Amino acid sequence: MEFGITFKGVVEADRARYLVRAAEHAGFSYCWFYDSHILWRDCYAAIAMCMEHTKDMRFGPLVTNPDVRDWSVAASIFGSLSKQSGGRFDLGVGRGDSSRRVMGFKPATLARVAEFIHKTKAMVRGDEVVYGESPEPVKFPWAVGHEMPAWIAAYGPLALKTAGEHADGVVLQIAEPGLCKWFTDQCLDAGKAAGRDMSTFRSMSCAPAYFGDKAKAIEATKWFPAMVGNHVADIVEKYGKDTSLVPASLTSYIEKRRGYDYSKHGQSSNPYLDFITPDVVENFCVLGEPEEHVAKIGKLKDAGVTQFNIYLDSGMEEEIIAGYGREVIPKFR
Amino acid sequence: MEFGITFKGVVEADRARYLVRAAEHAGFSYCWFYDSHILWRDCYAAIAMCMEHTKDMRFGPLVTNPDVRDWSVAASIFGSLSKQSGGRFDLGVGRGDSSRRVMGFKPATLARVAEFIHKTKAMVRGDEVVYGESPEPVKFPWAVGHEMPAWIAAYGPLALKTAGEHADGVVLQIAEPGLCKWFTDQCLDAGKAAGRDMSTFRSMSCAPAYFGDKAKAIEATKWFPAMVGNHVADIVEKYGKDTSLVPASLTSYIEKRRGYDYSKHGQSSNPYLDFITPDVVENFCVLGEPEEHVAKIGKLKDAGVTQFNIYLDSGMEEEIIAGYGREVIPKFR
Amino acid sequence: MEFGITFKGVVEADRARYLVRAAEHAGFSYCWFYDSHILWRDCYAAIAMCMEHTKDMRFGPLVTNPDVRDWSVAASIFGSLSKQSGGRFDLGVGRGDSSRRVMGFKPATLARVAEFIHKTKAMVRGDEVVYGESPEPVKFPWAVGHEMPAWIAAYGPLALKTAGEHADGVVLQIAEPGLCKWFTDQCLDAGKAAGRDMSTFRSMSCAPAYFGDKAKAIEATKWFPAMVGNHVADIVEKYGKDTSLVPASLTSYIEKRRGYDYSKHGQSSNPYLDFITPDVVENFCVLGEPEEHVAKIGKLKDAGVTQFNIYLDSGMEEEIIAGYGREVIPKFR
Amino acid sequence: MEFGITFKGVVEADRARYLVRAAEHAGFSYCWFYDSHILWRDCYAAIAMCMEHTKDMRFGPLVTNPDVRDWSVAASIFGSLSKQSGGRFDLGVGRGDSSRRVMGFKPATLARVAEFIHKTKAMVRGDEVVYGESPEPVKFPWAVGHEMPAWIAAYGPLALKTAGEHADGVVLQIAEPGLCKWFTDQCLDAGKAAGRDMSTFRSMSCAPAYFGDKAKAIEATKWFPAMVGNHVADIVEKYGKDTSLVPASLTSYIEKRRGYDYSKHGQSSNPYLDFITPDVVENFCVLGEPEEHVAKIGKLKDAGVTQFNIYLDSGMEEEIIAGYGREVIPKFR
Repeated sequence: MEFGITFKGVVEADRARYLVRAAEHAGFSYCWFYDSHILWRDCYAAIAMCMEHTKDMRFGPLVTNPDVRDWSVAASIFGSLSKQSGGRFDLGVGRGDSSRRVMGFKPATLARVAEFIHKTKAMVRGDEVVYGESPEPVKFPWAVGHEMPAWIAAYGPLALKTAGEHADGVVLQIAEPGLCKWFTDQCLDAGKAAGRDMSTFRSMSCAPAYFGDKAKAIEATKWFPAMVGNHVADIVEKYGKDTSLVPASLTSYIEKRRGYDYSKHGQSSNPYLDFITPDVVENFCVLGEPEEHVAKIGKLKDAGVTQFNIYLDSGMEEEIIAGYGREVIPKFR
Repeated sequence: MEFGITFKGVVEADRARYLVRAAEHAGFSYCWFYDSHILWRDCYAAIAMCMEHTKDMRFGPLVTNPDVRDWSVAASIFGSLSKQSGGRFDLGVGRGDSSRRVMGFKPATLARVAEFIHKTKAMVRGDEVVYGESPEPVKFPWAVGHEMPAWIAAYGPLALKTAGEHADGVVLQIAEPGLCKWFTDQCLDAGKAAGRDMSTFRSMSCAPAYFGDKAKAIEATKWFPAMVGNHVADIVEKYGKDTSLVPASLTSYIEKRRGYDYSKHGQSSNPYLDFITPDVVENFCVLGEPEEHVAKIGKLKDAGVTQFNIYLDSGMEEEIIAGYGREVIPKFR
Repeated sequence: MEFGITFKGVVEADRARYLVRAAEHAGFSYCWFYDSHILWRDCYAAIAMCMEHTKDMRFGPLVTNPDVRDWSVAASIFGSLSKQSGGRFDLGVGRGDSSRRVMGFKPATLARVAEFIHKTKAMVRGDEVVYGESPEPVKFPWAVGHEMPAWIAAYGPLALKTAGEHADGVVLQIAEPGLCKWFTDQCLDAGKAAGRDMSTFRSMSCAPAYFGDKAKAIEATKWFPAMVGNHVADIVEKYGKDTSLVPASLTSYIEKRRGYDYSKHGQSSNPYLDFITPDVVENFCVLGEPEEHVAKIGKLKDAGVTQFNIYLDSGMEEEIIAGYGREVIPKFR
Repeated sequence: MEFGITFKGVVEADRARYLVRAAEHAGFSYCWFYDSHILWRDCYAAIAMCMEHTKDMRFGPLVTNPDVRDWSVAASIFGSLSKQSGGRFDLGVGRGDSSRRVMGFKPATLARVAEFIHKTKAMVRGDEVVYGESPEPVKFPWAVGHEMPAWIAAYGPLALKTAGEHADGVVLQIAEPGLCKWFTDQCLDAGKAAGRDMSTFRSMSCAPAYFGDKAKAIEATKWFPAMVGNHVADIVEKYGKDTSLVPASLTSYIEKRRGYDYSKHGQSSNPYLDFITPDVVENFCVLGEPEEHVAKIGKLKDAGVTQFNIYLDSGMEEEIIAGYGREVIPKFR
């Protein structure tokens, strides 16, 4: 089991510099950043900074999308960060959610997500690449052959299939073991059907983790099912709520959802949270005493999850990182 | 007199980390990077890295252009770097030369350059900004009111006028005092004509500096007049070679020029260098013993130049930085 | 009110590097290290390391003594650390407790402590100094005139008098407001009697701080009254337990004390702790919820204490530092 | 062939931080510091600082002596630096030259040097150690079993024998291949006679290196034969100048020597340099164009030298480090 942390984006530089070092000491091996350049700054500037304060930790956007930057510009950032860190860069991609909606654009198609992965991986590697928007082939003379792992964020059937067929891993924004197993299996099946060796395919479960008093923890993390609901609503809209293509346990909780304010993306102050019940928060997050965290992550592991990734920025970041280092991560060594 | 260094882009991370610290110790207060994401990596990743190894040094692209990134994406990088460094970010902009031509695109208009400066400065400051490509107004909730200085790279009459009217400084890629005076005066006149207070307007002369044996120095830096010639050719093409709008001393040397290979931009291995004579190299660069550097930079200062900025990557970077710290910069304190 | 942290010595390098940065971010302005080179490593190597990861934080031994190093050797370390950190070094001195007893030596006299302060301060400043053991005067040609603040650790009447007459501050290893006031007043009176301006004299209260469940906190910090008792026993032995020179509230609690194991100095696993009752632990330490910490530190401030210094290494270091930064220190701004 | 640099001690912190990083990039794997706490600051504070700016470089005093610090204090520094750097600490020891003479003391005996090595190595390893001055055995509970390599500085027959019998390497302060071979062979013979496996025994040749104009180089480095002469004079005084125990090529050059000013130890401004002729400087140092450096170091390698260690602080430090990285060290890879 690998462990990661994700900064939703508001961490100040002064804190980020010691939090990543603390996280590395605690046993976390990945540090992810929301890529949402308007709401929360440019994540690549933050990644470059944090790389200077760590030795082995890997970094990446969670997630970027194929439309916010020209592909050669995006691949140049990815490859540059990889090069200056000795290869410590992973790519997380999705269809483009917050960063695109805030600007008034539509999400990209999954075919475009897949193509973005293949083209940027090739550019980072140093291959000559032809892609749609560029009138001429692009080749980075400075590339050094790094193989950049790529992950796709998925909930819906087509996204899971695309991840299984085209990515090195899937990003599941939920920590409910049953759903994680169902999602991961969809990827594995799709990959095998496409003839891929899926033995190294990775599955990441992302969610807030919070220690201590359950009521306080639920209050601090209820923004998360709301954010997930936003994605689930898209799926229900596309496939209907009674489809066999999506588990009812994923879609049922959003029936009373009324809206979402993207300017408060990932914040508990987001209005429209009244459809979220405490048991949904507990199901989707990892809450309580350390031994409860160990138990739930154990179930995620059994479900095929290979990385548990904590969404930070709910407060108590220092305590969560230190507590995992002291009482949770060692149980999985 | 301020001093800067510019990495044309090929400096490896391992070297950059100590070279910027050495430069700061030597008395350089600016470190610039070519923004050419295909030829030489993403400069913002390098800037973020170097900021972690310095305390007071300012950083910026020299130069970026308005077309390679969506403006909100560009402004987010600028503002993020400014925020995580405590305000140590300057913007250098041009019409888009190497990075656009390599991709097969045309340079931007000067009106667009000016608008890019105003819009990105406003976004970095935290204002709500409307710009062409964005369907909705953009406002960075995380901005902290930084005033980002902006410089425009110019040779031609219209670019100099635009710099004088819209920028905080002008970037002159040449170290010939007569031309620098003529260029700087054009900016000052244009700014005054537009009613601006030009007392804080700044003028930067950029060129390779090289110590020691003159023949070796000329060989190492002759790529520079060739690169300049590329810009001058554009001007001659536009204004004719006999125009009073451009000094003959700038245009005459390119009469025998036959071409330019952008894949070897800024390298002495660029073919098409045979029209460059030794005296042109000496005129355009700062070469020789330390006292010759002091003398020429003194003339630049008299010409109205406020920053001498050394184009590195001709080799001997450690020696040039240390030599300036020991024997040149102290003469201007 | 200033805030400090003290590493009793066992913090590993990997943790120290981020803990000091976290502490600086949280608002702590001092970081002290037990100087006990056999039990817990050389503190000056750790201080030099930590200085590289902070900007403004001050460092020092808490406490060293006049006998473990030749005075020129000691002053050279002090002055070297001061110079390479831009003056961020304070000296804490005592008669020599753990580090000397572990080696089988006796503590130094207070006259020697006072002379050690004057001589090392002079050497750090750059003066030519004559002292007992050195056959020739000592002068550091590299000194740059730093004034090194010196603190004396004291409980007994003579030590308090010495601190008031010779030091810039007093180190009180206890967080009981009544005793702190009594101790501090002794210093101020002695200093005034000697004709010193005591308006800038500083008083530091050192003790463990611990958040949360009181029983757990008492268990984690009961080593502290035991360690204090060790010093108090010396005082009782010297002045008798019924003297008016020492407050009965200080001496009464050690009546049932039977011994002390120096190899477990500062550890809750020290045997001989059975004379320590929970109320003594609460009196001597700062325990409980954040608001209880704020209340007690407020009382210390009223008692004349100028720095509250947390003895770490009782576990939960990350949580204590972060909690102070979030909920305690801001109340004193 | 390994390469090292030695700071004679006056390097400022601001420079040291980038010079060690530059040296590591250039291929130097050792950084040594004169241990002379009165003349040039405490070297261990500088070593701790430099360790934070390097990854693999090893550090050590060149040389310390058995008399300036209590052995438990010395071993605690050595072991603490080793622990916080992941084992990157070597010990260089001599009889105590500048640091003792400045204070008016006599050098230690070679038997004491050998015992110091064995005892401090044992303490750093974590063994319980009994030594003369300590009334009780000393054992560092925090030691982690590091094996600290120890080097002895030697010129005279007995010192060379002691190095061969007791140390892991010998420090030869001279870069004359014939003498280096003679010295190294003395060590190897003594070690073999004592039954040691000498296959991993190491021999370090230390001297200034300087590029460029020979007259200027000789002027900048002539302090070195003067400093060596100081040691040689001791040997001549002890063994006579016609002894077969010391090569005449070592002793003949000091015949006209008249004195030495220890307050200008290692400086070209030292008076008493008039007995030094240019050919002596060239013999003892490594001067001239890069290819001359390569040639001489090749001869040192043939003579059995395993590390060439440059005495810096003659000026041009940046240039020497960069030049070795670019033109000398790669020739020995």
